[in-house]
Amino acid sequence: MLVLGIDPGTAVTGYGLVRDDRGETPTSRKGSAGIGMKLVECGVIRTRPRDPLSTRLREIHDGVSELISRHRPDHLAVEDIFYSRNVRTTLALGQARGVILLAGEMAGLAIHEYPPAEVKKAIVGTGTATKEQVQFMLTRLLRLHAAPEPADASDGVAAAVTYMLTAHVARFTNGVDRNPGTGRRSR
Amino acid sequence: MLVLGIDPGTAVTGYGLVRDDRGETPTSRKGSAGIGMKLVECGVIRTRPRDPLSTRLREIHDGVSELISRHRPDHLAVEDIFYSRNVRTTLALGQARGVILLAGEMAGLAIHEYPPAEVKKAIVGTGTATKEQVQFMLTRLLRLHAAPEPADASDGVAAAVTYMLTAHVARFTNGVDRNPGTGRRSR
Repeated sequence: MLVLGIDPGTAVTGYGLVRDDRGETPTSRKGSAGIGMKLVECGVIRTRPRDPLSTRLREIHDGVSELISRHRPDHLAVEDIFYSRNVRTTLALGQARGVILLAGEMAGLAIHEYPPAEVKKAIVGTGTATKEQVQFMLTRLLRLHAAPEPADASDGVAAAVTYMLTAHVARFTNGVDRNPGTGRRSR
Repeated sequence: MLVLGIDPGTAVTGYGLVRDDRGETPTSRKGSAGIGMKLVECGVIRTRPRDPLSTRLREIHDGVSELISRHRPDHLAVEDIFYSRNVRTTLALGQARGVILLAGEMAGLAIHEYPPAEVKKAIVGTGTATKEQVQFMLTRLLRLHAAPEPADASDGVAAAVTYMLTAHVARFTNGVDRNPGTGRRSR
């Protein structure tokens, strides 16, 4: 199972592709969340501020479509937008997000959207975690030597990992081996 | 010359196709703005609120792409978004707008964006015109029996007519027969 995670932006869109290795290497399964996740690729799609908006939107759409056709992920996990007080910023992000969701829809991917606090909560355990805490946990969960670079790519990776962790939690809570005494409420 | 005008919305996207007939029928040219404009088609693209966002965005994108491939317009005129104080509304509109601009860009159209006040100013003469005044002027300029229906279609038609009028003004002010004494400033 392969997940493409995206953090939308008009100037810089971050992405990360994360694979669930657990099915493929059952002997390496340790029961700990994150063991079995592998970072396949991460990076950013940059657009030039001087280009017309429609050109930039096409570059974002084409960039995401190219990633999808090259890697053939099963899921698209998109970070929801931070609701800026600057309404122009929100509009610009909405436009970028629209063409990203469209690329996923056109390719028939299952699409998941996560607000920033949900990403932090899934990865660190609290919705108020700092960026550094998220990066530290990503590095650990994916067994990397350093946090994914640049920072915008890291946010895309975080969205993909959020899908992995919350999908596992859902599977887990549907099973019989759930322990309600762990202190963490599943909602 | 054919212009596709669009008023973006997640639930209802209005559109209008307006043709410049002046080149084709030079004898009917009266010198009055609007004579020579013809409404080819108008309507709305509706999406179901219960459908996932990505499905709705794809329907909007496919609807606009279908209009473009059926009519082959030269220009796409998109109404800029009313900056709602509701940031969620702004985000939703941004997403719809993103996939509309992408459809125009993919088809290689010249893309023009107009803030609502500019549409009102071009059509009625003042940026604070009411919706009724805009509809009255559209009816007159396009020699219709009634305003384009439904109202959302009318806003798409207004965007297309704005391109026609402002492109004509630009042509006019570049010529030698401009009369600076008319009291209306061209900027």
